[in-house]
Amino acid sequence: MEHDAAWTLHPQLDNDCAMLGDLPLSRVLLFRDANYPWLILVPRVADAREVFDLADAVRTQLMREIADSAQALKRITGCDKINVAAIGNMVPQLHVHIVARRKDDPAWPGPVWGHAPARPYADDALAALLRDLRGALGLA
Amino acid sequence: MEHDAAWTLHPQLDNDCAMLGDLPLSRVLLFRDANYPWLILVPRVADAREVFDLADAVRTQLMREIADSAQALKRITGCDKINVAAIGNMVPQLHVHIVARRKDDPAWPGPVWGHAPARPYADDALAALLRDLRGALGLA
Repeated sequence: MEHDAAWTLHPQLDNDCAMLGDLPLSRVLLFRDANYPWLILVPRVADAREVFDLADAVRTQLMREIADSAQALKRITGCDKINVAAIGNMVPQLHVHIVARRKDDPAWPGPVWGHAPARPYADDALAALLRDLRGALGLA
Repeated sequence: MEHDAAWTLHPQLDNDCAMLGDLPLSRVLLFRDANYPWLILVPRVADAREVFDLADAVRTQLMREIADSAQALKRITGCDKINVAAIGNMVPQLHVHIVARRKDDPAWPGPVWGHAPARPYADDALAALLRDLRGALGLA
């Protein structure tokens, strides 16, 4: 995809997440909540807030990256369900949550959004998960 | 899109929603909660649970229908934000929520999922909204 020089990551996402790498369209982040393996894809398109702000070919690429990331996340976690959402009520920059859910996780079967508090990762667990995810997503 | 004769709408969605019509891929429903104008798109593909269960061209069509429906919903409601999500923790049939959010709605800025109870529509308000949505979505 064309590089959008005017795009920068929203500081709230930068603060709350670890960086995994860049797919052709999206920056891939891991949200720091050890309760749920939780990816966030951020299309590197300046000023995008809604999916319909993206051009048709860009939306198609976003769907491809969502599906591929969701499938990789399911494969490496063995989770029961993937939840996908673009909400943006608090952070307006367009971003897509891809969350691995288990029937024994703290929020099941409710949504994870608004289900505080986040549980910090241990440093070694975070490093191992980032390594596995980079491998599965082709970001290694 | 190819008609999938083995697909039927999940009874829980049928019970909770009013029917708007069929786009090329998805059945379009209105969830019966007058707190939020709330569409649900259900791809008419049997046994699909996750977005990666759909073939590439089908996913692309789903993204087009999501974006077009979201834009139409924003236009006719004048809402502040659209929320889009495929969750499926309780109803496994793949379905996509497209929800018009306002900064003065009961759940803002939290998610609508798990924010009970639903508020029933008055009959005439429901009929008017269905008519407007069918027009905006080209289902009239």
